[in-house]
Amino acid sequence: MDKFFSVADIDDLDTVVQEALSLKANPYNWRELGKNRTLGLVFLNPSLRTRLSTQKAAMSLGMDVMVINMDKEGWALETQDGVIMNGTTVEHIREAAAVMGEYCDILGLRSFPSLKDKVADYTEELFNKFVKFCRVPVVSLESATRHPLQSLTDLITITEHKKVAKPKVVLAWAPHVKALPQAVPNSFSEWMCKAQEQGLVDYTIAHPAGYELSEEFTTGADIVNDLDEALEKADFVYIKNWSSYKEYGQVYPVQGDWLMTNQKLGLTNDAKVMHCLPVRRDLELSSEILDGPNSLVIKEAGNRVWAAQVVLKRMLENLKK
Amino acid sequence: MDKFFSVADIDDLDTVVQEALSLKANPYNWRELGKNRTLGLVFLNPSLRTRLSTQKAAMSLGMDVMVINMDKEGWALETQDGVIMNGTTVEHIREAAAVMGEYCDILGLRSFPSLKDKVADYTEELFNKFVKFCRVPVVSLESATRHPLQSLTDLITITEHKKVAKPKVVLAWAPHVKALPQAVPNSFSEWMCKAQEQGLVDYTIAHPAGYELSEEFTTGADIVNDLDEALEKADFVYIKNWSSYKEYGQVYPVQGDWLMTNQKLGLTNDAKVMHCLPVRRDLELSSEILDGPNSLVIKEAGNRVWAAQVVLKRMLENLKK
Amino acid sequence: MDKFFSVADIDDLDTVVQEALSLKANPYNWRELGKNRTLGLVFLNPSLRTRLSTQKAAMSLGMDVMVINMDKEGWALETQDGVIMNGTTVEHIREAAAVMGEYCDILGLRSFPSLKDKVADYTEELFNKFVKFCRVPVVSLESATRHPLQSLTDLITITEHKKVAKPKVVLAWAPHVKALPQAVPNSFSEWMCKAQEQGLVDYTIAHPAGYELSEEFTTGADIVNDLDEALEKADFVYIKNWSSYKEYGQVYPVQGDWLMTNQKLGLTNDAKVMHCLPVRRDLELSSEILDGPNSLVIKEAGNRVWAAQVVLKRMLENLKK
Repeated sequence: MDKFFSVADIDDLDTVVQEALSLKANPYNWRELGKNRTLGLVFLNPSLRTRLSTQKAAMSLGMDVMVINMDKEGWALETQDGVIMNGTTVEHIREAAAVMGEYCDILGLRSFPSLKDKVADYTEELFNKFVKFCRVPVVSLESATRHPLQSLTDLITITEHKKVAKPKVVLAWAPHVKALPQAVPNSFSEWMCKAQEQGLVDYTIAHPAGYELSEEFTTGADIVNDLDEALEKADFVYIKNWSSYKEYGQVYPVQGDWLMTNQKLGLTNDAKVMHCLPVRRDLELSSEILDGPNSLVIKEAGNRVWAAQVVLKRMLENLKK
Repeated sequence: MDKFFSVADIDDLDTVVQEALSLKANPYNWRELGKNRTLGLVFLNPSLRTRLSTQKAAMSLGMDVMVINMDKEGWALETQDGVIMNGTTVEHIREAAAVMGEYCDILGLRSFPSLKDKVADYTEELFNKFVKFCRVPVVSLESATRHPLQSLTDLITITEHKKVAKPKVVLAWAPHVKALPQAVPNSFSEWMCKAQEQGLVDYTIAHPAGYELSEEFTTGADIVNDLDEALEKADFVYIKNWSSYKEYGQVYPVQGDWLMTNQKLGLTNDAKVMHCLPVRRDLELSSEILDGPNSLVIKEAGNRVWAAQVVLKRMLENLKK
Repeated sequence: MDKFFSVADIDDLDTVVQEALSLKANPYNWRELGKNRTLGLVFLNPSLRTRLSTQKAAMSLGMDVMVINMDKEGWALETQDGVIMNGTTVEHIREAAAVMGEYCDILGLRSFPSLKDKVADYTEELFNKFVKFCRVPVVSLESATRHPLQSLTDLITITEHKKVAKPKVVLAWAPHVKALPQAVPNSFSEWMCKAQEQGLVDYTIAHPAGYELSEEFTTGADIVNDLDEALEKADFVYIKNWSSYKEYGQVYPVQGDWLMTNQKLGLTNDAKVMHCLPVRRDLELSSEILDGPNSLVIKEAGNRVWAAQVVLKRMLENLKK
C-alpha cells in the first residue's frame, strides 16, 4: 500500500477488518517491523483522536514518530505554481513536502477543506500535491473530502458488534452550530457502499432535502429525506452533521427534528449508535443515548488505533527493505 | 496506586521517598516494566518542569509518551452536564476523557483553578470528572488545589539534605505581581503536616494576615504572621506566593518585607532555601540567595524526575498484566 | 565535543564530513550509544527542518527526545541580571537553563537575533548564557549569528556532489520581502573560509554594496559586488538573502537583478544550486532552477540528518559514562 486515501486503496474489506482485529488481540507482535522506520504526522488542522490513535499505532509497531503541527507554527504553505512568493506564504508545498519525505519513511497528512472553493476541495489539490512531492507513502489523516481511517474504524466497529450477517446501517444527518465538511459522511458512504457490494451491510442515508452528498460517494445507497422511515429495522445508526455539497459549504434551516433521541431509537432494531466524535451533546445526539447502553462512540474511538495500525503495518510491509 | 492526587494516596512517606532515591541511583533498571505501556500527558495549562520531568521519568521506565496540549489547540471542553452544546465548547469531558483512556494505560492531567469559582475549584470538579470518565489511573500534574508531584519532590529533597533527624521546615509567603493559585502551598502543607505526624519534620507556616490557607491542608502546622519569628532555627525555608483563600483569588497589599534575603537567612539555622519555580528574582527571593550556597532550587527541580518515576512505577506495577 | 556552535568546534573538516557520510550509509549502527540518554530541543523560534532532522538523528542514535517550544508557550525568559522581575518575564534564564540541564544529557537551542541590538546579538549573549547555566553539552540549532548544523550540512553536500577536487563555491545574495538574519551567510562563510584554508574549496561571496558581512566570518574569501563576475566558473552557487550588518538589520533597495535564474546559471561551470530553505520561489531563486536538474536543495535538506547525527554522536562519545 503506497497511499491510504479512499476505499479504493483496499480490495477486500473483510480481510483488512479481520487483520485489524488480530492486531487488536495482539498489538505488540510487530514491534520489529517498524524498527528504524520513522512516521511523520503533519497537521494543517487540529486533531485529537487521529493524532493520538495514529501515534499509538505507530509506536506499537516499533516506529519512531514525529508530529508536525504546521497550523500552530504559522508555517503558511504556498500551493500554487507560477506565483512570485513575495507575500505571506513562507514555503512552497513542493519543497515542504519533499523535505518531510527526506526525513520520514511514511507521512500522514491532515488537511481540512476550505468549504469555499469546491473544485479545489473536491479535486483534493492539496493532498494530491503533497503525495506527489513527498515521494513516500502517505496516509490520509482526513483530507478535504474523505476521512478513511475513520471509515475503516467504523467498519471494524460494525463488524465487532453486528448481531446479524448483513446489518442495516443508517447514516443520519444531525444539526450543528457550524458549517462542517462532508469528509466524514462522504467517506463513510463510500466505505458502506463498497461493503454493501461485498455483501457485508445494507446501507441507507437519511438527510434533509438540500443536504445531498456528491453522488460519487453514494452509489448504491438507499437515500431518503425521512429519518423515521430510515430508522426502521436499523441495526446501526451513524449520526453526523455536514454542510451542503450543492450550495457548497452552506447551512440551511431544516424542518423536522433531526436530533437523535431514545424515542427515535425505539423505531430501530435496538440499534447501536455511532459518531466519529467530537459530538455536540443534545444538539446532534442526546445525552441519554451517549450515556446509555446503545452507544458505541467510545469503543468506536478506541478502534481508531487498530485501523491506523493495520494501514501502517501494510505500508511498512510494502516498503523496500 | 490508581490515582495520585494528594498525600492521602501515599501511606508511608519515608518508604516512597527511599524508593524514589533508589530510582535516582539506578534510573534505568525498570525499562521492561513500562514496555508496551503508554502514558498520555494532558495539559489544560502550560508546563515546563512538570512535562519534562514526567516525560523523562516515563521514558526511563520504557513507556511510550504522548503529550496533549489542549490549551494550545483551542479544544475547549464542556464540563457541565445537561447543557445543549450549541456554544463554544467543542467536546464534553465525558467523551474527551474516555477517549484518551482508550489510547493510554496511564494519564496525567494538569488543570489550574479558575480562582473565581471557589466551590468548583475546591471540589476539584474537573480533575474528579476526568478521573471518573477516563477509567485508567491518573496522576495529577497539578490540579486546582494541589500539586502532589511537587510536594513529593520537596520531601525527597528535604530528606536528601537534612542534617538533623527532624528538621524545622518553614513555608514562607512571598510577594508576586500576579494572583497565583494555592495549589503548591496547600499541597506542600498537607505533605508536611503528614510528615510531621510521621515524625519526619517540624512544620511552620508564615504568611501575612489574610493569606490563611484552607484548614484542611494545615492541621497540625504552627501558623504565624511574623516571618522573623518563623525563621528562627529553621533548617529549610520554602518560599512561595499565593493569593487569598478567604477572599478567593484576591491579592492584598501587605505590611512588612516578605522578600527572602540573605539578611533574613541569618535568622535561621543556616537554612537551605527551596522554591518550586519559576521564581521571580528579587521579588520573591533575592538573587544573592538563588546564586549562593544555600539554594536548593535547581536540585529540587531535578528531583521532579524521581517523584514522577516512583509514582509511575507504582502505577505500572498495579496495572493488570 | 562539549559545544557545537561554530566551525571552531571542528578541527579537521574532511574527517567530520566523512564520518557523517558513513552514518548516512549506516544510520542505525549506533542505537546503543544513545540508549538511556535524553536530548532536549529548545526552540525560542520556529523550526521545521532543524527540529525534524535533529529529532530523527537523535532517535536513530537510540536517544530519547523531548521538544520544548518555548515560543509557543508564552514562557518569556529574563536574560538580564540585577532586574527585579516584576514585569512580563516569568523565569530567568539562569533557572530555566539549569533546570533543563537537569533533565537532559544534551540540549539543543534555537534562538534568532533581535536584529535591533547588534552588540547583544553579536556577542551571542543568549546562547552563551544558556550554555553557561545549563551545564550540559549544547548544540546550536541556529543562534543569533550562526547556523552551524546548516553549514556542516552544506559542506557534506558539496563534498558529495563535487566533480573536481577543489570546487569554486559562490555565496550569492538574493532578494527577499523581510529583513533576515545574517546567521546562515555568516556561518556558511566561516565554514567555507576554513574549508578553503584546508584546501577543500575556493570561496567567493557576491552581494550588493551595503550588504557586507562582518569580517570575522569572511577572512580569506573573495568578495565582489558583481554577481555575473562571481558566477564565472562556479561549481556551486549558494543562494541566500540577508539584511545589512553595517546598518544593522536594515534592508536597502538594490540595483541590478539578483534573482538567480537559468540564464545566470549559464555563466557558471554547470553549477549546482543550493539554498538552506525555506526559499521564496521566483523572488530568491527561479522555479525553473528549483524544479530542474541543477538544484540540490532537497538533497541538501535531507543531509541535515547526517550533520546532526555526527555532532550528537561525538557529544555522546564525549559524555562521561
